[in-house]
Amino acid sequence: MSNRRVLIDSLPTEHLTEKNFKISEDQIPSIEENEVLCRTLFVTIAAGSRAGLQGSASYAGAPQTGVVMNATGVCRIETSKSDKFIKGDLVVCQSGWQDYSSQKAAQCQKIVDDIDLKHYLGALGTNGLTAYFGFHRIGKPSSGETVLVSAAAGSVGHLVGQFAKLVGCNTVGVAGSEEKCAKVSGRLGFDSAVSYRSENFRKQLKETCAKGVDVYFDNVGGEVLGAALFRMKEKGRIVCCGAVSQYDTSRPSGSPRGIPGLLVNKRIRMEGFLVFDYLKEYEAAKKEIKQLIREKKIFPENDVFDGLATAPSAFVDLLGGGNIGTRIIKIDQ
Amino acid sequence: MSNRRVLIDSLPTEHLTEKNFKISEDQIPSIEENEVLCRTLFVTIAAGSRAGLQGSASYAGAPQTGVVMNATGVCRIETSKSDKFIKGDLVVCQSGWQDYSSQKAAQCQKIVDDIDLKHYLGALGTNGLTAYFGFHRIGKPSSGETVLVSAAAGSVGHLVGQFAKLVGCNTVGVAGSEEKCAKVSGRLGFDSAVSYRSENFRKQLKETCAKGVDVYFDNVGGEVLGAALFRMKEKGRIVCCGAVSQYDTSRPSGSPRGIPGLLVNKRIRMEGFLVFDYLKEYEAAKKEIKQLIREKKIFPENDVFDGLATAPSAFVDLLGGGNIGTRIIKIDQ
Repeated sequence: MSNRRVLIDSLPTEHLTEKNFKISEDQIPSIEENEVLCRTLFVTIAAGSRAGLQGSASYAGAPQTGVVMNATGVCRIETSKSDKFIKGDLVVCQSGWQDYSSQKAAQCQKIVDDIDLKHYLGALGTNGLTAYFGFHRIGKPSSGETVLVSAAAGSVGHLVGQFAKLVGCNTVGVAGSEEKCAKVSGRLGFDSAVSYRSENFRKQLKETCAKGVDVYFDNVGGEVLGAALFRMKEKGRIVCCGAVSQYDTSRPSGSPRGIPGLLVNKRIRMEGFLVFDYLKEYEAAKKEIKQLIREKKIFPENDVFDGLATAPSAFVDLLGGGNIGTRIIKIDQ
Repeated sequence: MSNRRVLIDSLPTEHLTEKNFKISEDQIPSIEENEVLCRTLFVTIAAGSRAGLQGSASYAGAPQTGVVMNATGVCRIETSKSDKFIKGDLVVCQSGWQDYSSQKAAQCQKIVDDIDLKHYLGALGTNGLTAYFGFHRIGKPSSGETVLVSAAAGSVGHLVGQFAKLVGCNTVGVAGSEEKCAKVSGRLGFDSAVSYRSENFRKQLKETCAKGVDVYFDNVGGEVLGAALFRMKEKGRIVCCGAVSQYDTSRPSGSPRGIPGLLVNKRIRMEGFLVFDYLKEYEAAKKEIKQLIREKKIFPENDVFDGLATAPSAFVDLLGGGNIGTRIIKIDQ
């Protein structure tokens, strides 16, 4: 028995490619007192991880090579030297892209098999909580308002749209193709969708958001943020959640025009947040989200790839906008 | 007796010059029922008025030529056809740059001669209220925090610095010359000051704000905003009050780098406001500010030019950064 690990082999200088990763086979790690050996079942592929490979621009600190690619996973405990867990327990932890990992018991969060386990990496994971806290706490939406969401088919975006419908908002999603837009306004439940790759994107956005935008949930930055800024209503709120358009490049685009002039004239609030700021409220939010899933009030999408070896290509494809919902790798056992 | 009026003769295409204005002599206006004839005593020269000459970029709407230059004034009622006022009453109204104006009585605000009348155009006027509400409501400062203020010697800026000292903040002012900086950290009461025209401005700003900035009160936009953004602490707040660096040009500079990336990573809130949003709270704030002046807890500065004919040159000079405090024209009678 060995441990397959996907290592960061080199840092991307321009677009990320599969060649930035390599797979190694190593020994299954041993564990110390108060540690557990985890068998990875599922891991996430998260766009935000691309920023972590970019260096100082990210809150994650300087990137390294020769280490396993970081990711959150759902794991089964194989061996335990902690009285918190026994063999067979299910946990969420920072497993990384690998078959096995040794974890400090205190860093593992026990979960129960009471819902599709993949939701623990999506709607009940960091992405779902990001959508939940960012939208409610920073966006401060009201019924009847228009909510614009970029990367609307993405892991965070599609949930923001569904949370917004629950509040009674009019929802407009931005995605990268007509095909994706059809899904955004179809099964993902947005009221309408606009493709930012469309030739007359700004015009379409203006027509679609004819009454203006109250809350813009920005996952992408760059050109889409620039266009959205001009659609904001007075007292509008821009939730700065991410800047995925800027991650997979060594030449990020300039900041949008109109800052700070438009912010002043329209009294716009633009506010960044990190989900970790709401740590104390995670449990209550997860309970609420789980209930919403069970009552079929939201329909979180998970986009599953099969096999650890697919992780690098699944990541590259994700950065190109290939996913619908949360991209997850089902680890082959 | 005639009415001297300073008219907008042409709209600036690049920097504003005195030639954009002309003085005309006209008849003293007649008044209708519920109107008053006002004799202007003092008028303000406000940097924000430059934006009003720029067209659609401003909340003031499209600019016009052949009309009197708009400004707030302190006036004495000469004739009244309203039961709200009698001859000799003092009011604040939108007098414009002229000797006489007819005003609807409902648009005039009665003042009493219980304090230097010029304060009604400065600390007790729009600029003072802008400093007060912007700093307190958008900045949400706490004792011990570092407050950075651009255009620190300006009408709004110098008051923000003084309000911040009252809260117990460490105050850093940005101004346009070493000479002005000496005044900012001298009689205007800031703890320290940095000149944005200094060759190593960014380095100096970093050294002066060694612990980072909690609240940046931005009056200028452009390069100074760009530099300040990189000095913000986590959960910092940028009060977007104005963008004076962008007003007096047909080629505004680009937006600052790092938006939205820095806003996300540092959870920065950037929020614009207009003082008119707080209209209902004006009276309470003015009462408080008046008390602060009387108790010598703040020292608002008024920068007085003598004679209506000086208004255009006083305005051009203000846009070049010539003022300390609120620039006011004392109208020759």
